Amino acid sequence: MSTNWEQINEYAQQWIKEAGDRIQETFEKELTVQTKSNRKDLVTNVDKETEQFFIERIKETFPTHRVLGEEGFGDDVSALDGIVWIIDPIDGTMNFIHQQRNFAISIGIFQNGIGMLGYIYDVVHDELYYAQKGKGAFLNDQPLPRLQPVSIREAIISLNATWVTENMRIDPKVLAPLVKEARGTRSYGSAALEMAYVAAGRLDAYITMRLSPWDFAGGLIIVEEVGGIVTNLYGEPLHLLGQNSVFVSKPGLHEEILTQYIRK
Amino acid sequence: MSTNWEQINEYAQQWIKEAGDRIQETFEKELTVQTKSNRKDLVTNVDKETEQFFIERIKETFPTHRVLGEEGFGDDVSALDGIVWIIDPIDGTMNFIHQQRNFAISIGIFQNGIGMLGYIYDVVHDELYYAQKGKGAFLNDQPLPRLQPVSIREAIISLNATWVTENMRIDPKVLAPLVKEARGTRSYGSAALEMAYVAAGRLDAYITMRLSPWDFAGGLIIVEEVGGIVTNLYGEPLHLLGQNSVFVSKPGLHEEILTQYIRK
Repeated sequence: MSTNWEQINEYAQQWIKEAGDRIQETFEKELTVQTKSNRKDLVTNVDKETEQFFIERIKETFPTHRVLGEEGFGDDVSALDGIVWIIDPIDGTMNFIHQQRNFAISIGIFQNGIGMLGYIYDVVHDELYYAQKGKGAFLNDQPLPRLQPVSIREAIISLNATWVTENMRIDPKVLAPLVKEARGTRSYGSAALEMAYVAAGRLDAYITMRLSPWDFAGGLIIVEEVGGIVTNLYGEPLHLLGQNSVFVSKPGLHEEILTQYIRK
Repeated sequence: MSTNWEQINEYAQQWIKEAGDRIQETFEKELTVQTKSNRKDLVTNVDKETEQFFIERIKETFPTHRVLGEEGFGDDVSALDGIVWIIDPIDGTMNFIHQQRNFAISIGIFQNGIGMLGYIYDVVHDELYYAQKGKGAFLNDQPLPRLQPVSIREAIISLNATWVTENMRIDPKVLAPLVKEARGTRSYGSAALEMAYVAAGRLDAYITMRLSPWDFAGGLIIVEEVGGIVTNLYGEPLHLLGQNSVFVSKPGLHEEILTQYIRK
């Protein structure tokens, strides 16, 4: 029996909107904030409740599907056979806590490791970025045009100041010249939104040194569907079950940055 | 005769909303983009038309008021006697061009150099930040609470990667330790919005090395009205008729950053 992707898509969109409404309802309530791997890695009760909401719905409706979720309530996924939902219930938790905006629900649905459906939902601005493999990407049902090449000197690149100051992942000197050469740099604090902005042409590239699969799973599918390129910093494919550096870019610009700044 | 600030406020808000509508109408049209002082300093026909729109309205209604505008269509203001409107028709022009969002109309109205009315209008999200001296600050008519102290380790600071890489204004080593110590850094590419976010508590501080009066005039009034501190990087008052470094922060945090990072 072939998989009914239209049906999965319909449920996914419905659950994402429902989860977004629930998240907005929590704005009036007190948050419980905890730290995870380090003092900058935050989680709230709303992250956890939202992940549990998705898992309940998925298990009920699609009992054979597995779930890899940031907060760990899903399955113990060590291989990507079958259908796997990779979920970040709130990407940009720090923004969620401090700003009550600039965070997103991010979901990628994979079949035997191939990205089939991707979603990034900017809850507060009610913007759903969505793609189905081979069928294009959309922002609230408006098709997103294919990305066009741009030069570094006319590019806006999302790059946090962390990666050009002393840090544990990269020599600050590698990316510093890019900051000078690019038209501008930005940093929004949500990998999912930063990938969505590349897909929508609002950013030309996004570089970061350490993401988990749930941070980029939805964005990977959406960006590739509009002709953007998603690799690790060194141009290699991302591992879907581990941490990666991530380099997302318009075509052309990706090659230019790789050869002139990263590999040189 | 005493100045009728309520009337000025009413007109200002009306014109700002009208200008915002006009800007949104241009989204469908082709932009004319030019560079100004350098290749990263951009201006469009919409910046110019919007400034002219404000100047016409102000001169018609308040013939004695003077206007200092970014695009130079206003008066040649060399002293701040009387009532002066300091206007940035589109703060964040690069975002306006690339993103059609994350830009703002910014206006500060000064009387003999004292900030009386401040406005930052996030056009696309229809968020008007506004303050009247001594009467509080508001976001779309909701009062903004007074800012509360926060430690550096729990602060989100807006700081562009430019200022921690080689640049003409500051040794990159000065601010780099702040990037590491803060909970997070962000960069949105609009000084006015970054000041509005500090006023609204979404950011805890904002540091940048070179702004003109129209970039900070509106924000200065709004941030001070909620108890935030606005100085240059070295803790000195801003010059309203020249370029400045700008350091905007919650109280307490301002002193902590000054003594521990900048003056040390």
